[in-house]
Amino acid sequence: MRFKAVIEYDGTAYHGWQLQKNLPTIQGKLEEALARILRERVRIIGAGRTDAGVHAFGQTAHFTADWSHDAGDLHRGFNALLPPDIAVKSLSVAALDFHARHSAYSKVYIYRILNRPVRSPVLRHYAWHIPQDLNLSKMVEAARSLLGAHDFCTFGSPTDGTTSTVRKILKAEWERDESHGMLSFTICGTGFLRYMVRSLVGTLARVGREKITPHQFNDILIACDRSRSGPTAPPNGLFLDSVQYGESGRRGLWGADDH
Amino acid sequence: MRFKAVIEYDGTAYHGWQLQKNLPTIQGKLEEALARILRERVRIIGAGRTDAGVHAFGQTAHFTADWSHDAGDLHRGFNALLPPDIAVKSLSVAALDFHARHSAYSKVYIYRILNRPVRSPVLRHYAWHIPQDLNLSKMVEAARSLLGAHDFCTFGSPTDGTTSTVRKILKAEWERDESHGMLSFTICGTGFLRYMVRSLVGTLARVGREKITPHQFNDILIACDRSRSGPTAPPNGLFLDSVQYGESGRRGLWGADDH
Repeated sequence: MRFKAVIEYDGTAYHGWQLQKNLPTIQGKLEEALARILRERVRIIGAGRTDAGVHAFGQTAHFTADWSHDAGDLHRGFNALLPPDIAVKSLSVAALDFHARHSAYSKVYIYRILNRPVRSPVLRHYAWHIPQDLNLSKMVEAARSLLGAHDFCTFGSPTDGTTSTVRKILKAEWERDESHGMLSFTICGTGFLRYMVRSLVGTLARVGREKITPHQFNDILIACDRSRSGPTAPPNGLFLDSVQYGESGRRGLWGADDH
Repeated sequence: MRFKAVIEYDGTAYHGWQLQKNLPTIQGKLEEALARILRERVRIIGAGRTDAGVHAFGQTAHFTADWSHDAGDLHRGFNALLPPDIAVKSLSVAALDFHARHSAYSKVYIYRILNRPVRSPVLRHYAWHIPQDLNLSKMVEAARSLLGAHDFCTFGSPTDGTTSTVRKILKAEWERDESHGMLSFTICGTGFLRYMVRSLVGTLARVGREKITPHQFNDILIACDRSRSGPTAPPNGLFLDSVQYGESGRRGLWGADDH
C-alpha cells in the first residue's frame, strides 16, 4: 500500500530533510519511527528537500508499506514515536502511482521577515530579523516580476542531474502584519531550484532596503547570472507551507528535480 | 537614574522570571548582562513574576543605575550581552519614583490554545495543544462573567504577605484564528493572583469541552474555593503581553502583590 503523509516540522535542530549519515535529519527521524512500527526500514520520499534550519507546515511525503490495520492506527503510532519537533498532520492511503515529488503540481513556500529595530526572542528560529526599515511597496512591485515562467538561473541551481532552470511562478505576494512588524512572503510555483526562495528573498530585501530598484531586480532576474543574486536569506525564516496535487499520479509541469 | 525596560523573552529554557540560586532565570540573566555593562550588580524589578516556561512579549521592569552616556547606548549594549531568548525591546529614562510593579495600572496576558487533532512541532513551546473540539461560544460566554471586580480566590493565591484576592478584570476575550486552529485568550486586569490566568484557562477549557456549563463556571468563580478550579493550564501557552502605566508613579489599584 502507498501512503501519503502531510508533515509539520521545526527544522531548527536538523541538518535538513534529506537523509545523511550520522547527522539528524527529518527524513531520518521519520524513517526510524516508521521502522519501529513496521519492523522494517522503508524509504520516505518528500516533495521538497528543505535545507538545514528550514521548517515545514505541510511537507508532503509518500512511502510504501504492508499495513493490515487501520490507517488511523498507523498515524497515531507514527506521531507517538516521532520527536516533539516533527509530526504527521495527516496520513492517508494514496494511489499506488502517487509520488510526493513527481505528482506535485505546485508548492507554496512562506518566508517571514521580522522588520523591527530589536530582535525577537520568541521568533528567533522562525523569522529573519532585519532592523533597517524596508520599503514594502517596492518589494511588492519587484515580486510581481516573478510571475509566470522564467529562467531562474540567477537564483539557484537545478539538482538530480537535470539542467533546466525554468520554473513557473503562480503567486508571489508580500503581506505586512502591522501589529508584529512581520513581513510574510508567499510564493507558489510549479517548482523551485535549490536555494531559490532564499536567494529571491535575499535579493528582494535589497529592494526593500533601496539598494536596488524593482527595475534592477527584474534585470537581475533576466541576466541569468548566479553572481548577481543578493545574499541568500537565512534558513530560519523559510517554511514549506503546502504541496498541491492534481488528479492522482499527475506529474508536475517542471517538478522532476524540485526542491 | 531610573530606567524603564520593556522585555521580550522565550521562557522555555528558564525557571521563571524570579532570581533563584544556581538556576537560570530571566531576572538573573538580565542582572548579569547589566552588571557587565555597569560593572556593578543592580536589582531589576519586573512588573510580573512569570513562572517557569511562561513567555513575555512585553514584560516591564525598572532599575536604577549611574549612566552618563546615551540611553540608546545602554540599550544596544544590553541586547548585545543578553542570550538570544531574551531581548530588551525598549529602554527609556523614567521618573525616579517609577516602579514597574507598583506603578502598573493594568497588565495584559495572552493564553494560546492550539485546538486541532495533531500537535504542532512549530508551536510546541508556544501553545497548549488540546485535540478535542472546544465549544468556543461557551468559552466566550463563561469568560464574560470574569469582567469587573471579583474575589478570585478559586483561581489563585496572593503573594508578598498580602491577603486580598480581589482583582478587577477589564477585558476577557477569546478569538479564533481559523486558518491555524488557534484560540487566543486575552485578559486584561488591574492585577492577577499567582497561577490565576492558567487556572482560569484550565477551567475555561473544561467549559469548552462541555464538562461544565458557563453557568457552573460562574458558580465556581463565586464559590471562592481553590479546590473547585479546573487543572492549571500548562505554562507554554501563556504570554505576559504588556503592562499599562498611567501618570508616572501612579499605583495600580490592586497591584501591590501582583504576578
